[in-house]
Amino acid sequence: MIDESNDSAFKSWCESAQGGGFPIQNLPLGIFSVGERRRRAGVAIGDFVLDLAGISDVLDEDWRADLSQPVLNGWLARGPDAQRALRERLQELLSDEKYRDEVEPQLVGQSEVRFHLPCFVGDYSDFYVGIHHATNVGKQFRPDNPLLPNYKYVPIGYHGRASSVRASGEPVIRPNGQRKAADADAPEYGPSRRLDYELELGIWIGHGNDLGCSIPIGEAADHIAGYCLLNDWSARDIQAWEYQPLGPFLAKNFLTSVSPWVVTPQALSPFRKAMPSRPSGDPQPLPYLSDAEDQKTGALAILLEVTLTTDKMRQAGLAPHILSRGSADAAMYWSAAQIVAHHSSNGCNLQPGDLIGTGTLSTDSAGGLGSLLEISHGGKQPVQLASGEARSFLEDGDEITLKAWCERDGVVRIGFGECVGRVVSSS
Amino acid sequence: MIDESNDSAFKSWCESAQGGGFPIQNLPLGIFSVGERRRRAGVAIGDFVLDLAGISDVLDEDWRADLSQPVLNGWLARGPDAQRALRERLQELLSDEKYRDEVEPQLVGQSEVRFHLPCFVGDYSDFYVGIHHATNVGKQFRPDNPLLPNYKYVPIGYHGRASSVRASGEPVIRPNGQRKAADADAPEYGPSRRLDYELELGIWIGHGNDLGCSIPIGEAADHIAGYCLLNDWSARDIQAWEYQPLGPFLAKNFLTSVSPWVVTPQALSPFRKAMPSRPSGDPQPLPYLSDAEDQKTGALAILLEVTLTTDKMRQAGLAPHILSRGSADAAMYWSAAQIVAHHSSNGCNLQPGDLIGTGTLSTDSAGGLGSLLEISHGGKQPVQLASGEARSFLEDGDEITLKAWCERDGVVRIGFGECVGRVVSSS
Repeated sequence: MIDESNDSAFKSWCESAQGGGFPIQNLPLGIFSVGERRRRAGVAIGDFVLDLAGISDVLDEDWRADLSQPVLNGWLARGPDAQRALRERLQELLSDEKYRDEVEPQLVGQSEVRFHLPCFVGDYSDFYVGIHHATNVGKQFRPDNPLLPNYKYVPIGYHGRASSVRASGEPVIRPNGQRKAADADAPEYGPSRRLDYELELGIWIGHGNDLGCSIPIGEAADHIAGYCLLNDWSARDIQAWEYQPLGPFLAKNFLTSVSPWVVTPQALSPFRKAMPSRPSGDPQPLPYLSDAEDQKTGALAILLEVTLTTDKMRQAGLAPHILSRGSADAAMYWSAAQIVAHHSSNGCNLQPGDLIGTGTLSTDSAGGLGSLLEISHGGKQPVQLASGEARSFLEDGDEITLKAWCERDGVVRIGFGECVGRVVSSS
Repeated sequence: MIDESNDSAFKSWCESAQGGGFPIQNLPLGIFSVGERRRRAGVAIGDFVLDLAGISDVLDEDWRADLSQPVLNGWLARGPDAQRALRERLQELLSDEKYRDEVEPQLVGQSEVRFHLPCFVGDYSDFYVGIHHATNVGKQFRPDNPLLPNYKYVPIGYHGRASSVRASGEPVIRPNGQRKAADADAPEYGPSRRLDYELELGIWIGHGNDLGCSIPIGEAADHIAGYCLLNDWSARDIQAWEYQPLGPFLAKNFLTSVSPWVVTPQALSPFRKAMPSRPSGDPQPLPYLSDAEDQKTGALAILLEVTLTTDKMRQAGLAPHILSRGSADAAMYWSAAQIVAHHSSNGCNLQPGDLIGTGTLSTDSAGGLGSLLEISHGGKQPVQLASGEARSFLEDGDEITLKAWCERDGVVRIGFGECVGRVVSSS
C-alpha cells in the first residue's frame, strides 16, 4: 500500500513532477485530446498528462470502461473508494521504477494537448457563500444593511446554465443585452459595457442522490469528487436591469469557464482547516447543516490569484497585472459539504458530473477582491495598469487568468492549473 | 401531398381518432415503453400510440436512426422541415386504407403504456410572461406597484433544474426546507407547509444555436419543436425565505412535471392569434423582440384547465374540483418566439430538447388563476371543496391535473393530454 499522507519525501520517477503544481501527491484527472484524436481521460504529473487509456493494462480491468469514456461522469459516479484506489495505483505506477518503461511512453506534454470539460455537466448551480463578496456587493445597493436576513441561515444559491460551461481558453464573446442607464427613461439593447469576471471555486459532484432523498451533512463530503477554478463571467449592466425578481439570467449564462483538472479531496486533505469561527451574534447553522467533523476540517486553504493582461500590455511585453490574491478559507461562510447538503436538502437530485460554483471568493482585504465590480467600487475607482491604461470593467482583448494552489511548509505544493479567458467583440 | 390545413373533413381510418384530442390533425410525438421493454418514439392517434420503430419500413430510411432513440432530441434537432415531412407521411399512412394492414398492428393502447420524458433535458429555464400572475403575486408584496419596472421591457426568466424534470405521473414528494414564520426570530427546517402548483406551458426546443450566436426574432419560431403542459411545483414558504437576492432555488427544483406529448406548431397553427394589444402607455418591444408576423400570429388560443382531487374526494367518488379555466393567449405578455429570441439574445446556446417554461398562466379573471397562491390570496381565502374540505395549499394525497386543448367551430379539436401529480409525504 502506498502512503496517502502526501509526505513530501515521496517522489515520482517523473522529474518534472518535483517542484511544480503536479507532484505525485496531486494527480488530478482531466479530459484531453491530441490533434484530431478522440477525447480521453488523463492525469496530470509534472509537465505531462498520463494517458489512462494507454496504461489500461496495468489498471484494474473493472475500471476500464469508465476510464475510457470522453467524459469522467461514469468514473466519478463510483465515489470516493474508487477515487482512492485509482490514486494509490497511480502513485505506485509513477513512483516505482519497475513500471517506468511501461508507463513513461504514455506521457504527453501538457503543452501539446487540448483540454476539454472533464464532465458532461447535467446541471450547473452557483452559490453565494463568499461573505465578503456578498457584503461588498450588498453595500453598493444597501449601504446600511448589505447582507439580507437569510444570508447567515441559508447557503444562497441558484441555477446557472449548463450548456455554456466551457473549459479554460474559450473566448469570451461580449454579450449583447438590455441595459438601462440610471438617468434613461428606457433600456437599450447592445453590447455590455460593464463586463466582469468572478473568481470562484467549482465543485464536481461524484456519486449523486436519488430524487426525493437528501444527502445528510455527515455524508456530503463523500459526494464531492473534486474541485476546479471557475470564472462566472458577468455583465453587470445587464444584470442590474434584469435580475429582479427571479435572479441573474442573461447577465451570466453566455459563458462559464472552468480550469481543466478535477483536483481531488485526497490531494487537498493536508490543506483542510477548521471553518472560520462565526462572528459573535451570528446564528449557528441549523442541524441539517451542522457537523462537528465539517466544522473542524471544512475550510480549504487554497490560495487564489487573478491577473489581467490587456492587448497593449501584451504588445509591450508587460507582466500580467495582479488584480487579487487571497485564500478560499478566509472567504467562505459555508463549506463545500454544507453547500451539497443544502442543495439536496429538499430532495433535489444531484448527479455525477454536476458542477456547483461557490460564488465569488473575496477576502476581507482590498487586495483580495474577486471581481472588478468590487475592485473598482462599481466603476468609480478604475484600476491603473503599467501600460498607462485604466480599467473599471473588461475591454475587448483583455485576458483574465485565475490560478490556485495549496502550499505550506513541509508539504508538497498542489496546483490547480489555470482558468483563462480573453474577451472578444460581439460582432 | 397531404393537405396540412387541418381540414376537419380529413380523417384517419383509426376510428378513435375522431372526436378525441388526438385526431390525424394533431399527431404529437412522445416516448413510451410497454412493460419492461425499452423506450421508443411514438405518435398519438386516437386512443393509441403508434410505435414509430414498428413502421420504420414505411418511413424515410434517413429518419430511422433518430426515430429509434429513447429520446427525441436527435429528431427534433432536424428542425421544422423534417417535422413537417414526418407529419405529412404519418397523415398519409393513417388516412389511406392501403397502409392500414401494415400500420394498424403497430398501434398500442395509450392506457397500456408508460410515458417518459420526450427528451433528455440539457437545460430547463423558466419564464414569467404571465402578466396577470406577475401582477397578482406582485400585489401580495407591493400592493401599489405590483410589476417591477423591467417587466414590460424584459421577458423575465431564470434557470431551473434539469435533473428533476419528470413526465406526468411522478409522485410529488413534499420537500423539506427552511421556512420562517413572519413573527419568528429564526427559520426552521421541515416539510413545506405551503406547497403549490403552477400552471404553465412548456416549450421544447428543436434545432439550437451555437454559443455566441443569437437567434433573430424572425427565425425564433422555427426553433420551437412543440409545446406541452408544465407544472412548476412550488414551496411558497421555502421560496419566500430563500429567494432574495438570486431568485427561487430549492422552492422549485425538487420536481417539475410535464405532459408527455410534444404538440407541434403545425397542429397548433389554426389556433394562432394576434398578440393582445399592449395597454396604452406600455412600451413597444425593443427591435430585437419585434416582428410583424409574430405580432399577428404569436398568441396561442390554448384552453387550460386545472383540477384538484383530494384523498377524501377520491374515496367519496366525487368529481375533481375545477380550480381554473382560461386561455393561454389571454395570459401571455410575451410570445414563445419572443421568449426564444430573448433567451439567446446574449449568445446563450439553446440545444435540441431544452425545455422552457412560460411561467404561470393566469387570466385576468378570478376563475382563471394558475396557482393556489393566487386563488387563496396567499392562504387567506381557502378553496371550499364538495367534500367539505378546504385548501389554501396542497395536502398529502392531493392530486393536481393540468389539461389543455384547442378547439374552435369548424376546426378539429387538438388535445395536449394531461400533466398529473399527487402529493406524498416527505418521509
